[in-house]
Amino acid sequence: MTTQPHRRVVSGDVEGRDEMVTASGDPNDESQEISVEKGFEGKSVPAWQKQVTVRAVFVSLVLSVLFTFIVMKLNLTTGIIPSLNVSAGLLGFFFVKSWTKLLAKAGMLNQPFTRQENTVIQTCVVASSGIAFSGGFGSYLFGMSPTIAKQIPESGGPLNTKIPGLGWMISFLFVVSFLGLFSVVPLRKIMIIDFKLTYPSGTATAHLINSFHTTEGAKLAKKQVQALGKFFSFSFAWGFFQWFFTAGDACGFASFPTFGLEAYQHMFYFDFSATYVGVGMICPYIINISLLVGGILSWAVMWPLIDGKRGDWYAADLKKSSLHGLQGYKVFIAIAMILGDGLYNFVKVLGRTLMGLYNQWNIKDKGVQSNDPNDPLSQIVSYDDRRRTEMFLRDQIPSWFAITGYVVVGVISIVTIPHIFHQLKWYYIVCIYIIAPALAFCNAYGCGLTDWSLASTYGKLAIFTIGAWAGSSNGGVLAGLAACGVMMNIVSTASDLMQDFKTGYMTLASPRSMFVSQVIGTAMGCVISPCVFWLFYNAFPSLGEPGSAYPAPYAQVYRNMAILGVDGFAALPKNCLSLCYGFFAAAIVINLARDLLGKKYAKFIPVPMAMAIPFYIGSYFAIDMCVGSLILFIWQKLDRAKADAFGSAVASGLICGDGIWALPSSFLALAGVKPPICMKFLSRGDNVKVDGFLTG
Amino acid sequence: MTTQPHRRVVSGDVEGRDEMVTASGDPNDESQEISVEKGFEGKSVPAWQKQVTVRAVFVSLVLSVLFTFIVMKLNLTTGIIPSLNVSAGLLGFFFVKSWTKLLAKAGMLNQPFTRQENTVIQTCVVASSGIAFSGGFGSYLFGMSPTIAKQIPESGGPLNTKIPGLGWMISFLFVVSFLGLFSVVPLRKIMIIDFKLTYPSGTATAHLINSFHTTEGAKLAKKQVQALGKFFSFSFAWGFFQWFFTAGDACGFASFPTFGLEAYQHMFYFDFSATYVGVGMICPYIINISLLVGGILSWAVMWPLIDGKRGDWYAADLKKSSLHGLQGYKVFIAIAMILGDGLYNFVKVLGRTLMGLYNQWNIKDKGVQSNDPNDPLSQIVSYDDRRRTEMFLRDQIPSWFAITGYVVVGVISIVTIPHIFHQLKWYYIVCIYIIAPALAFCNAYGCGLTDWSLASTYGKLAIFTIGAWAGSSNGGVLAGLAACGVMMNIVSTASDLMQDFKTGYMTLASPRSMFVSQVIGTAMGCVISPCVFWLFYNAFPSLGEPGSAYPAPYAQVYRNMAILGVDGFAALPKNCLSLCYGFFAAAIVINLARDLLGKKYAKFIPVPMAMAIPFYIGSYFAIDMCVGSLILFIWQKLDRAKADAFGSAVASGLICGDGIWALPSSFLALAGVKPPICMKFLSRGDNVKVDGFLTG
Repeated sequence: MTTQPHRRVVSGDVEGRDEMVTASGDPNDESQEISVEKGFEGKSVPAWQKQVTVRAVFVSLVLSVLFTFIVMKLNLTTGIIPSLNVSAGLLGFFFVKSWTKLLAKAGMLNQPFTRQENTVIQTCVVASSGIAFSGGFGSYLFGMSPTIAKQIPESGGPLNTKIPGLGWMISFLFVVSFLGLFSVVPLRKIMIIDFKLTYPSGTATAHLINSFHTTEGAKLAKKQVQALGKFFSFSFAWGFFQWFFTAGDACGFASFPTFGLEAYQHMFYFDFSATYVGVGMICPYIINISLLVGGILSWAVMWPLIDGKRGDWYAADLKKSSLHGLQGYKVFIAIAMILGDGLYNFVKVLGRTLMGLYNQWNIKDKGVQSNDPNDPLSQIVSYDDRRRTEMFLRDQIPSWFAITGYVVVGVISIVTIPHIFHQLKWYYIVCIYIIAPALAFCNAYGCGLTDWSLASTYGKLAIFTIGAWAGSSNGGVLAGLAACGVMMNIVSTASDLMQDFKTGYMTLASPRSMFVSQVIGTAMGCVISPCVFWLFYNAFPSLGEPGSAYPAPYAQVYRNMAILGVDGFAALPKNCLSLCYGFFAAAIVINLARDLLGKKYAKFIPVPMAMAIPFYIGSYFAIDMCVGSLILFIWQKLDRAKADAFGSAVASGLICGDGIWALPSSFLALAGVKPPICMKFLSRGDNVKVDGFLTG
Repeated sequence: MTTQPHRRVVSGDVEGRDEMVTASGDPNDESQEISVEKGFEGKSVPAWQKQVTVRAVFVSLVLSVLFTFIVMKLNLTTGIIPSLNVSAGLLGFFFVKSWTKLLAKAGMLNQPFTRQENTVIQTCVVASSGIAFSGGFGSYLFGMSPTIAKQIPESGGPLNTKIPGLGWMISFLFVVSFLGLFSVVPLRKIMIIDFKLTYPSGTATAHLINSFHTTEGAKLAKKQVQALGKFFSFSFAWGFFQWFFTAGDACGFASFPTFGLEAYQHMFYFDFSATYVGVGMICPYIINISLLVGGILSWAVMWPLIDGKRGDWYAADLKKSSLHGLQGYKVFIAIAMILGDGLYNFVKVLGRTLMGLYNQWNIKDKGVQSNDPNDPLSQIVSYDDRRRTEMFLRDQIPSWFAITGYVVVGVISIVTIPHIFHQLKWYYIVCIYIIAPALAFCNAYGCGLTDWSLASTYGKLAIFTIGAWAGSSNGGVLAGLAACGVMMNIVSTASDLMQDFKTGYMTLASPRSMFVSQVIGTAMGCVISPCVFWLFYNAFPSLGEPGSAYPAPYAQVYRNMAILGVDGFAALPKNCLSLCYGFFAAAIVINLARDLLGKKYAKFIPVPMAMAIPFYIGSYFAIDMCVGSLILFIWQKLDRAKADAFGSAVASGLICGDGIWALPSSFLALAGVKPPICMKFLSRGDNVKVDGFLTG
């Protein structure tokens, strides 16, 4: 799974960047722009200590909790997480701006709100909510739990499970999440200034923040915040209203058989989720279409066909959740497609990384100084670049600090982790930490080129290698999942940090304040995310069960990958392996076709990664997302300018309102308050029976 | 019940006129207007035979069927029927205009579309769909049926019931519906030209039609038709979608416990009916508020209180529908309030009628000629009035024709009706026919002054007088209901015709074409309405049962009034009579307050008639209507001009779409196609039981 919580919508798709930002100017094409920094010339840049203010940290904390809830909900429902950068940027700006305005009115304002401070908030929130994703609460970490394990009868005993606990989750995150930061800090100048990597998401965020701090930008932002607020309220109220009708399983709007009961059985229905309608508005059309295509292909064609082979391909008396039955086909075909897509993109990005590095090397060797000069200040012609480079180089972070940090944190975690997961031996971790910096660099570089973090692909690599190394008898499944966590956290935070450096570079924020805010955000995330997960885990006992409100599909998928890594293909039912090969190859071929056919045709070719997600959980959320797409499409036809300016804000409102409803709803569940009504859908025949039962 | 199908929303309220028309200029205030007829000066007025074209009759037929379905649905659900004049006008204009445009393009147009022809369509459609109301399919006629009778254990045996039959219903309507027309034809010059009565609805309709035939008016009409069409489709699709979830009683959106199950038991819920949201948008705010106030007063306060006296005020073991129990309080208090309101307004309108006549007489005696000259053409100053009067007087309908017509039709019906209802002796009918012309004149005159048809009040008079005369042992209940039908039809068509003469006067349509189109429309209605009712009656076996989709509340109310007329107050449970007196008086006092306090405060005082309706059926439709009000209110706040121009069109679309869905839905029911799914609402406890029952 390569779904990234921020920056990217569904990885594999570079168009996933924020539309609100791209609408106001392509962030990659700086040459055509008039100077941004000239507009800010009068404004002084505060010292880095003054960029990381208390109020910024406070606002970050509030927003972190908000976004952690949203990301956690998305993690546990479908695992598709759209870019929440715009909402974070908008809300951060809105809160601090309101706060400073209030103070200014009271005559107590001693420090104006600068874009550097805004960047600090953004960095902090994104880092913190990033942990909600890379912490694996919807994937590897939850995949270790007995809840998921018991659904897979083949997955081994207590040796391969670990009950989620607040203590060990927080400790684990603390010892693995900071390594990534230290590993790439020394490379920031090379990446940002020497290599001039684009980092599309980081650049887009910087453009957004810069625009907020112009007069018109602030006005537009205010209107966008209003739109966001309106749809936030609506979405929250809708979530609240829906709640009343969910007394029991398969009750309420989330189980609405919109297209009939037959279609509902095959997971085709509109489930009235404001979240996924919003997600659909943010995701590119092709992602939504891919999801729908994948859903139709699997639930309407493949699964019924395979179900027809029951008793032939697999025993007819198996439990529904057994991997030797239909469930096995669903899970492993999805995994094959995800791995195929992952492999293709891994090779592609690695190839581009190596090619890029080779070119840089060549230029340096030949002394060519046209594009990438080595003495940064002397050769820069653009005013913006000169000023930004100047500011970027002013505050240094010494390399010895980064290396010391890496070694110290590394040693601590090598000592600590085997105590948390005794299946993960200390020498596995040493190995990971030796290779990790190289992979972190690769990921940060690739992300700079393509905007695409391969963190979860590296995680999967760790699952298979460490899992196989540990072996079945030594708890290889759990070792693999834990190793995945270690690897993913390092690699993911590394690319995040570099994106933030780029944002900081473009908003004249100091690298030191970026680093510090990233550290603060990560620390927040290490505490908030496990707590939020803990709340969900205790509030919703059906968490992780297929068909429930929170199926957490990727927890299942990750655990199955680990089993596959340890046990090999023995676990697969008849013909499943051939089907997997087919879909693995298909994923690669489809990706190749997307790349070779050019933009004109590529936009009509579905994305294999997105197609694979509904294989396992069905296409109800794909229908929500297509509804979102449709709404945006019609809006754009009616009023293009307005749709472009407010689309993201409306979508964010829908996502945030429904997402934050998870907070009161989980408190209600914890307090034992149950919804009073069940909105049930019965076939006519059942209804007659039930009426008879209730009256007689 | 004085609810009128067209012209008026809920009688008793003069603001019920069409907002679309009033927005473009007060139709009563002609003095301030620039000449309308000057704008039409170039256009010749076709001869009256050319006004009643075949295409006009054809379009009228199509629209009549459409509106009969809508009115029938409204009749059978709540009995509240909003003004459908605008939709009829818009659609009539749209159809013939499209038709003539098409012909003109093909070069085959031999007669252009004139406003006179448009008036003919309007008159025809309104006359036809008027029969759906005055035919009593939701009141007296259906009140005779065994379905209604068996709900009231006290209402006597087969002597007092009559099974609805297509044959006798059509014959009955044919022999009673034309008398009203003949009775007032000779008075048209006195009413329209001499007395210059305003007929607000007729005037408003004329303004609408005149505006359609100007260039700008046609453009606006086109946009309005588009808005109507859009919401028509939406509403139809919504009705269709809802249908799938209604397998069984208390299934589907119409039983949605929006405010919880407790509130649902007390009939407080939003039932997602597009029709009543649309009706709410057309009805004045105070009507909707009155309904809600009435609903809260009765279902939230009075009924629970009276229910607490169970075993004290009435026996605890009574059937739920027994009039000696709670049901009796509900029905008779509602009747008391309706009668109180009816009496007050009857006295008021009659007083104004007599006062008006007295004034006319005085003027004539004194030879004063300032306002109301007797020689019409010589004294008129305004160009419009001169031209209109000229055209109005051009085509005459001789008085001997009217009198002969009345006598012939009267004799036929005196002979025929006792064969249909043998309980209604021929001498009762003779009596009615002797008094009827006077009452018809009173009603037509009162309607011209106040826009208020008292048809159903005269009908109630007939119920009580004829019912008491016939007596209990001779089937007095049925005789009363049949007499009500005879009276209502005469009185109602009389005022309708006069309204149409006013419309014709203002659009230069000939009185002859008005009369002919009214006759054609009435004849259509006499066939279409019983057929449509017959379709409903056969398609929905639960028609008329309380709590079903079609409770037909007024059928119950009318039958109970007849029982009251025959049996006196003996039927009433303990303390019910005192409560009835109280509410009867309250209705009069509230009306007095409305009239005495002046417009400023009157608009905050609820209308008793409207308050009484939810007493019996609950306030779910009142909530729909308040939602409609709220939508219109917000729309007006956001964009007053647009809301005024398109509000009626949108509301008409909502009403028509859902109304016309009744056609396919009744065909589906007749064909035995049942909806596949039941959307059921269970309490948490019941849900657990049902889940146990279904799985175990």
